Amino acid sequence: MNIDDYIVRKAEKASLAARILSNVGTEEKNKALLSMARQLKKSEDNILRANEVDLKNAKKSGKNSAFIDRLSLDEKRINSMSEGLEKVASLPDPIGEGIKTWKRPNGLSIEKIRVPLGTIGIIYEARPNVTVDASALCLKSGNSVILRGGKEAINSNSTIYNVINKAAVESGLPEGSMEFIDVTERDAVEVLMKLNEFVDVLIPRGGRGLIKSVVKNSTVPVIETGAGNCHVYVDAQADLDMAEKIVVNAKAQRPAVCNAMETLLVHKDIAEKFLPHLGNTLKKLNVEIRGCSKTQKLIPDIKLASEEDYETEFLDLVLAVKVVDSIDEAIDHIYKYGTKHSESIITDNYTSSQKFLKEVDAAAVYVNASTRFTDGGEFGFGAEIGISTQKLHARGPMGLNELTTTKYMIYGNGQTRK
Amino acid sequence: MNIDDYIVRKAEKASLAARILSNVGTEEKNKALLSMARQLKKSEDNILRANEVDLKNAKKSGKNSAFIDRLSLDEKRINSMSEGLEKVASLPDPIGEGIKTWKRPNGLSIEKIRVPLGTIGIIYEARPNVTVDASALCLKSGNSVILRGGKEAINSNSTIYNVINKAAVESGLPEGSMEFIDVTERDAVEVLMKLNEFVDVLIPRGGRGLIKSVVKNSTVPVIETGAGNCHVYVDAQADLDMAEKIVVNAKAQRPAVCNAMETLLVHKDIAEKFLPHLGNTLKKLNVEIRGCSKTQKLIPDIKLASEEDYETEFLDLVLAVKVVDSIDEAIDHIYKYGTKHSESIITDNYTSSQKFLKEVDAAAVYVNASTRFTDGGEFGFGAEIGISTQKLHARGPMGLNELTTTKYMIYGNGQTRK
Repeated sequence: MNIDDYIVRKAEKASLAARILSNVGTEEKNKALLSMARQLKKSEDNILRANEVDLKNAKKSGKNSAFIDRLSLDEKRINSMSEGLEKVASLPDPIGEGIKTWKRPNGLSIEKIRVPLGTIGIIYEARPNVTVDASALCLKSGNSVILRGGKEAINSNSTIYNVINKAAVESGLPEGSMEFIDVTERDAVEVLMKLNEFVDVLIPRGGRGLIKSVVKNSTVPVIETGAGNCHVYVDAQADLDMAEKIVVNAKAQRPAVCNAMETLLVHKDIAEKFLPHLGNTLKKLNVEIRGCSKTQKLIPDIKLASEEDYETEFLDLVLAVKVVDSIDEAIDHIYKYGTKHSESIITDNYTSSQKFLKEVDAAAVYVNASTRFTDGGEFGFGAEIGISTQKLHARGPMGLNELTTTKYMIYGNGQTRK
Repeated sequence: MNIDDYIVRKAEKASLAARILSNVGTEEKNKALLSMARQLKKSEDNILRANEVDLKNAKKSGKNSAFIDRLSLDEKRINSMSEGLEKVASLPDPIGEGIKTWKRPNGLSIEKIRVPLGTIGIIYEARPNVTVDASALCLKSGNSVILRGGKEAINSNSTIYNVINKAAVESGLPEGSMEFIDVTERDAVEVLMKLNEFVDVLIPRGGRGLIKSVVKNSTVPVIETGAGNCHVYVDAQADLDMAEKIVVNAKAQRPAVCNAMETLLVHKDIAEKFLPHLGNTLKKLNVEIRGCSKTQKLIPDIKLASEEDYETEFLDLVLAVKVVDSIDEAIDHIYKYGTKHSESIITDNYTSSQKFLKEVDAAAVYVNASTRFTDGGEFGFGAEIGISTQKLHARGPMGLNELTTTKYMIYGNGQTRK
């Protein structure tokens, strides 16, 4: 069979399963998730053996240590995937939730309820845990899922998939609820991205290159996730101890994630008091600072920040710093360079806080808190499938509700339109 | 200037205006809408003169009467556009509405509020009223709008645009709030569909060809509207007088719209009692019936329905009819041929009604009412920009709320992530 037919067949199967899944009850879905959790733990040895193969190949082809780390599995990580499944089972089922009910003058009663999206395609890279996490969220929200992981993780992913898919089907979910694309040719993705008839949405999870390519080539609707060029702005009137703690947290607690801060903006009135001390603290944490000329005068021995630095999502222990004349300049800078992900102001001024909340356009806008909280878990969603950086459908952390759409159910007694 | 630069410049201008518009107050927006309404009426003569030119060209190039009707303006239609602006001014402003507020254990208070999408591109065909209706809804919801109408209406559209844009800007809205693409080259749309940097969403309004082309070629997120292959299913246990009234209404009250019924499904147990009488009624209304072989036995002198008939959105006084053995066969037929727009069951059986509501996947599912109610006005939204037939972002009639996205505003007092 050629790749086109192969992918079409899988997508069609997932689409047929979605029709059944949309009406599977909460108890059945939870039973399946818990069975998947158990089988995953039981299959630890198999999974680790498959992972060994992937790791060996990745090392042979010279992948860097960050890549190897994302790819690596161990007992702890498998336990954590298994616990993730249990966690999703414990979350409330979004399906069937009544969002709104109203009555029209002609007597029609309209109910807006939450229903599954249908079939969700997940295109991801070398993190095998996505195979489990994404499947759990899709199934719990009544969607079938088509998984397409990176070729470097193909052995780990396919072993994990076989375990959890078998558990799901044996506990009663329809075949096709989870489909896994086990060919590594790039063409497979190309085909998947055009299957509007069977696939309702694609969610790419991974680096910027992957996401851009999916957005560019897909005719299936896409939810864009990921890119975060986040800022913290320290206002003229601010608690500078708090500001330093937040800046350190937003930059250094976990620099490789999308909600980490990349550029610090500091009001000129407090720059002299704030920056020298902060500079020392950050240097001790091995943060490389690149500053504007004013910053260079206050923190010795740092590079001049370039235009490109302000544009860059470093995802590393690197920080661009700029001294600004006003909150307006800070907001303009964020408008120009930001990716509308997470932005924070540190201030003790009421007007500044309100202005920043109102004028900064981003998925999450903070006052006096670290940008690192933009996360489904931290928001209390229980789990997340990604952080949407687009405005359509979902914005910010996406939990189970964001994997649903709605349907109007309309109760009449003979109404016709005049 | 070449077309690329021209379109990019317009989109950039609209995007800059969106930033300002998102924080313009309700009173200012309403003032602008009412001024637009007044100026539109005042400019009636100019608009009708421009429309004359378009009509003359359209007739010369042999457009059919339905096309000419959609393109035609008269005093009544201009009044109705003007009243539409007043109506939108009177609707509640969705922007700033708090959707949810909650507190996290660490003390963070999270507020989810409604904000504008940003810049909305409307790609439409030969109906000049879209120029006004779409602009009104976009502006009221704090979005800037880029209008791209069909080349056959270019004179009408550009005259209308000049009138309402001048009124909007003079009453204080930022320049660029409305941009109009006044070149008719097809390239212009191609460029617009790739401007993800400046355009947040595209809404195509028109025939299936236009919509398909935008979905296929746009990298900007699209909201698909329009196609409706809608069904009415008359169950074994149903009030047949009510059923006939609903069928007549769903088919014949306005056949050219997307929420009109295209195929009637009838349970075999009541087919003999129901179809002969219905056949007579529909024939008097000049409805052409194409039926399955069982239908042909009950309604004389009708053509056999083909596979293609069941697939077709006739948008005309043509109806496909099929006798089915069970509600399951009806639901399967809808699954196979439907476009997930509007589906209705006529029944007096509780179990059937619940089964149909639950198992039929469509934007709107009705019991004992005409499919023709799937409409922003009929739903009580006050106005609509279209009917979404996709599952992402919005499904069914789209009013002002559907032209918004959300933003999380997070209030902290020094929180950092552990």
